[in-house]
Amino acid sequence: MKIQPLGERVLLKPKKEEKTAGGIYLPDSAKEEKKQGIVVAVGMFKDGKELPLKAGDEVLYGGYSSEEFEIHGEKHLMVEFKDVIAKVTL
Amino acid sequence: MKIQPLGERVLLKPKKEEKTAGGIYLPDSAKEEKKQGIVVAVGMFKDGKELPLKAGDEVLYGGYSSEEFEIHGEKHLMVEFKDVIAKVTL
Amino acid sequence: MKIQPLGERVLLKPKKEEKTAGGIYLPDSAKEEKKQGIVVAVGMFKDGKELPLKAGDEVLYGGYSSEEFEIHGEKHLMVEFKDVIAKVTL
Amino acid sequence: MKIQPLGERVLLKPKKEEKTAGGIYLPDSAKEEKKQGIVVAVGMFKDGKELPLKAGDEVLYGGYSSEEFEIHGEKHLMVEFKDVIAKVTL
Amino acid sequence: MKIQPLGERVLLKPKKEEKTAGGIYLPDSAKEEKKQGIVVAVGMFKDGKELPLKAGDEVLYGGYSSEEFEIHGEKHLMVEFKDVIAKVTL
Amino acid sequence: MKIQPLGERVLLKPKKEEKTAGGIYLPDSAKEEKKQGIVVAVGMFKDGKELPLKAGDEVLYGGYSSEEFEIHGEKHLMVEFKDVIAKVTL
Amino acid sequence: MKIQPLGERVLLKPKKEEKTAGGIYLPDSAKEEKKQGIVVAVGMFKDGKELPLKAGDEVLYGGYSSEEFEIHGEKHLMVEFKDVIAKVTL
Repeated sequence: MKIQPLGERVLLKPKKEEKTAGGIYLPDSAKEEKKQGIVVAVGMFKDGKELPLKAGDEVLYGGYSSEEFEIHGEKHLMVEFKDVIAKVTL
Repeated sequence: MKIQPLGERVLLKPKKEEKTAGGIYLPDSAKEEKKQGIVVAVGMFKDGKELPLKAGDEVLYGGYSSEEFEIHGEKHLMVEFKDVIAKVTL
Repeated sequence: MKIQPLGERVLLKPKKEEKTAGGIYLPDSAKEEKKQGIVVAVGMFKDGKELPLKAGDEVLYGGYSSEEFEIHGEKHLMVEFKDVIAKVTL
Repeated sequence: MKIQPLGERVLLKPKKEEKTAGGIYLPDSAKEEKKQGIVVAVGMFKDGKELPLKAGDEVLYGGYSSEEFEIHGEKHLMVEFKDVIAKVTL
Repeated sequence: MKIQPLGERVLLKPKKEEKTAGGIYLPDSAKEEKKQGIVVAVGMFKDGKELPLKAGDEVLYGGYSSEEFEIHGEKHLMVEFKDVIAKVTL
Repeated sequence: MKIQPLGERVLLKPKKEEKTAGGIYLPDSAKEEKKQGIVVAVGMFKDGKELPLKAGDEVLYGGYSSEEFEIHGEKHLMVEFKDVIAKVTL
Repeated sequence: MKIQPLGERVLLKPKKEEKTAGGIYLPDSAKEEKKQGIVVAVGMFKDGKELPLKAGDEVLYGGYSSEEFEIHGEKHLMVEFKDVIAKVTL
């Protein structure tokens, strides 16, 4: 079973904790809009080029237009690439 | 009898069940906006390139601008490609 | 007497019946916005390319911006190409 | 004395009658927005290409942004090319 | 002393009279928005191409965004090229 | 100490007087929106091309989105290039 | 631990003081919208070209859409490149 995002979309598994081992902390006031997640699958740009993300990447994302799915019992989110703010590396 | 979508449109047959064999589950709160369907026919991009979908593909779609038809007694929907969120493969 | 549409416009003769011989049925709730028609004449894209329709094509169209004419006693409609949803073939 | 339209504009002389010899009839409800006119002079597209109209063409036009002039005692109208719906030929 | 318009702007000297020798008459209802002027200096298109006007041209212009200057005691106006409707020649 | 504008921005030193030696006069009603200034530094167009202005140029500018700085005790303004109306030369 | 901005974003560490050694002073009325910061990491333009900034650059930035993070106990901000007004050099 695989979900392949279409267009400039990214499928993520959200991370529960607001503080990573690496030390990014999101203030309370920001928790609603900025969250961390792990990339599961990515779509592509309109011109056919790949989005600069791959499965397994840890990202910070925001925006209000994410869509929620449950896949094999696990919560997933589909977000627009423009709402993925940054890639986090250790 | 064939309906050939014009522009960046996709003709779908909606799927009734919200939980697939493969295990995608859409929470109640999301059922109105996110649904599964089977692609029947596809239009094309403005520059003449083909949409990355073909008849028989299983997709997740959203959006509020889909248009309903009944063809030979079966309900069909015409949706904009931008509202087709993902392709589902087993 | 000929009316040659300018820009991305399509001149149609509307079809009265909501159910075609081929079996497309438009539900009551949709009759106001989605209708069938026969193409009479077509304009062209801004870059000079032809619209993918020709006189005699049967189409499904929607939208609220169509303009009504009576030509030799017959009702005609000028619609934007973007509001022509699909081409119907038998 | 000559008025040369600039940009994507068309200078027209409006036609009084709503029914042409050729038989186009505009319903009462539409008379305010759709009218017939004779092209007097045309501007050009932004890329320098000519508009597909020339002096003497009979056209149907709509829109609310036309501008009125009186030239040598005759009423003229300047309309945007996008509001010229069709060219009428006999 | 010279004022060189930047961007797609045109510097004009407005003409007082509403009726030219050549016979263009602007109805009272239109006097506020449509006026005649003489081109003093012109800017250029974004791609570096020249605007199709030169100093001395008589024009009809409209729009509400013109800006007023007094240069050596004479009233001048800076208008956007898109608000210059037509060039008037005798 | 240098401030290098980014994007299509222009750094100006405003001129106090509303009437230049050369004779441009801005009517009272216009003083709020149209002012004279001396260019201090310029950014660039998105495609990397230079803005058609250089340090020392005298300009007329308008718009409401200028941003105020004090550099070494002198008031400076950052304005968008699109709000710089004209270059003034003697 | 590294945060790599995606899209046309810039990661900054804000500077507390409103007056730099170099002498830029932001008036009280402007303190809310214009601030100084040190670039930590930069994203890229949509066409893949690099933003004209690098880690260590001192910048003036504005806008209301910046997003706040705490990294290893230090406050950081993610801002859109279009809201970075100027680069400050000594």
